[in-house]
Amino acid sequence: MSEFHFIRQLNLSQPVRRDEVVLGIGDDAAMLDVPEGHHLVVSTDTFNDGVHFPEGTAACDMGYKSMAASLSDVAAMGAEPLAVNLSLSMPDSSEAWLAGFAQGFFELAGQYRVQLMGGDMTRGPLGISVTIFATVPAGRAMQRSEAQAGDLIYVSGTLGDAGAALLALQGELELAEPQRSALMCRLNRPSPRVETGTLIRDYASACIDISDGLTSDLGHILEQSGVAAMLYVDQIPLSEPLKSCFDAVGGWTIPLSCGDDYELCFTVPGTRQGELENLLAGRQPAVRCIGMTEAGEHLKLMMPDGTIKVAEPAGYDHFS
Amino acid sequence: MSEFHFIRQLNLSQPVRRDEVVLGIGDDAAMLDVPEGHHLVVSTDTFNDGVHFPEGTAACDMGYKSMAASLSDVAAMGAEPLAVNLSLSMPDSSEAWLAGFAQGFFELAGQYRVQLMGGDMTRGPLGISVTIFATVPAGRAMQRSEAQAGDLIYVSGTLGDAGAALLALQGELELAEPQRSALMCRLNRPSPRVETGTLIRDYASACIDISDGLTSDLGHILEQSGVAAMLYVDQIPLSEPLKSCFDAVGGWTIPLSCGDDYELCFTVPGTRQGELENLLAGRQPAVRCIGMTEAGEHLKLMMPDGTIKVAEPAGYDHFS
Repeated sequence: MSEFHFIRQLNLSQPVRRDEVVLGIGDDAAMLDVPEGHHLVVSTDTFNDGVHFPEGTAACDMGYKSMAASLSDVAAMGAEPLAVNLSLSMPDSSEAWLAGFAQGFFELAGQYRVQLMGGDMTRGPLGISVTIFATVPAGRAMQRSEAQAGDLIYVSGTLGDAGAALLALQGELELAEPQRSALMCRLNRPSPRVETGTLIRDYASACIDISDGLTSDLGHILEQSGVAAMLYVDQIPLSEPLKSCFDAVGGWTIPLSCGDDYELCFTVPGTRQGELENLLAGRQPAVRCIGMTEAGEHLKLMMPDGTIKVAEPAGYDHFS
Repeated sequence: MSEFHFIRQLNLSQPVRRDEVVLGIGDDAAMLDVPEGHHLVVSTDTFNDGVHFPEGTAACDMGYKSMAASLSDVAAMGAEPLAVNLSLSMPDSSEAWLAGFAQGFFELAGQYRVQLMGGDMTRGPLGISVTIFATVPAGRAMQRSEAQAGDLIYVSGTLGDAGAALLALQGELELAEPQRSALMCRLNRPSPRVETGTLIRDYASACIDISDGLTSDLGHILEQSGVAAMLYVDQIPLSEPLKSCFDAVGGWTIPLSCGDDYELCFTVPGTRQGELENLLAGRQPAVRCIGMTEAGEHLKLMMPDGTIKVAEPAGYDHFS
């Protein structure tokens, strides 16, 4: 099967057509219309086999997760996703692999009305690069640099699930069912928090998605905003499956420093807390206040035993 | 050196800042303003070591060529380049390699006023993926599908130079200096035809850049426009260095079927020929009429000896 046939097949199988995509797959470039009064939001994420995906990850999960991580980036800006470009490098032309990948990729694309509008397919070591396009009304995006001392720090959902699943895959942890399946699903099929992002954008001062780990990603907000913070560690929301193996996984290290959860971490001025909590009441995922920013430059952790530690920037770094 | 340090260094060393880039490197996503009345033009190109670059290609040439090929895609739409996202996978963190890459990449970025506005850097086999952003006034982009029977077929510059250089690198051809250097430069540092693209967009009916080979790329225009064509092979423009080794490289096969020249191939209605030639007179690169489209569905080649052949679609295909 040829490169061109592959691309045609991907294009035909995709579930979404958007009016904003003036010209899709099949030319030297694609063309997009950005609605008046909106900024275009763009993010590129690359996923390499054996680096971003544990060995043995199914093709459909690679498709799902690469789309989810891309959606998560624009969710962290409060933007509405629109389209993606996909660049696929594959060592050989496996129709079965591609069909699996497309199934996972388009499952989320359909759910969030995202059109595949371009990209390319090349021979090489397995690698997936997704560039996502989204829109946000001008002046309303959340940025990492806008937190103020005294803001409340929130996270969505629960943290540490993907980290525990990874430990289990690496053989460092025994997990019983159904906990194992629930945590694996969080690792392989994370839920991008797109709705949460658009709901909070008019209340939050800064936002980031947790891909590298809470202390590391919150650290980016603090550094870029020039503020410090205190986290109340026992306020970090945990899932029931994680609670069931919490001591075995090593306790709070996992939710504090493991990535891949793709939850949002955001800061909210105290004056907006009431409105925000009313707006989000009863919605999924729940959000929870886990700390507060302050003047200074460290991220401090109030541990459940009342001691205070300064967090090391401990998230994933490809070249550290 | 860390991933974040690398990215910061790249950002600091880049020569261009554009007003349209509302938010550049350093957040979950970048933000771009598209001028009113314009479409955003987007293209993604991936380059893998040993596939897209002959072994031994210098880092600065990889940087230059990946930017050139991306610019060429938007040139083929008649668009004006604005910004890029860069995704780099590297097996290790080589400061020297990155500095070389950045030098070549930013040399062209500076020339065409393109800002690096985002991307990512990951550990993995060496791979470069560039997504380029450009703008074109609404309704004025050239598309592959708009050629009409009876249009004239043009190419810019000269064809076959990169193909001859590749043969020499593969040891299949001996080249003397200064021809060797001139042809190597065409392979490693192609000139994107951005000005030509914007000049011809109001005259040409269809356009493509020649990355896979003339017959293959012109074949895409013919297929998508539903027309046939006759090429007058002895009208294909050749460079002096290529002429000097023309028989040794195998004659017309090289300019007909080798890619990597990044010249433009475009079709022009007969009624616009005079205006177009006046507009381009004296400009570099020169353009030359090499054939004509007609009703039907084959690409025929009128060879210099007067015989007519039907061209096989013979360009580069990653999975054929």
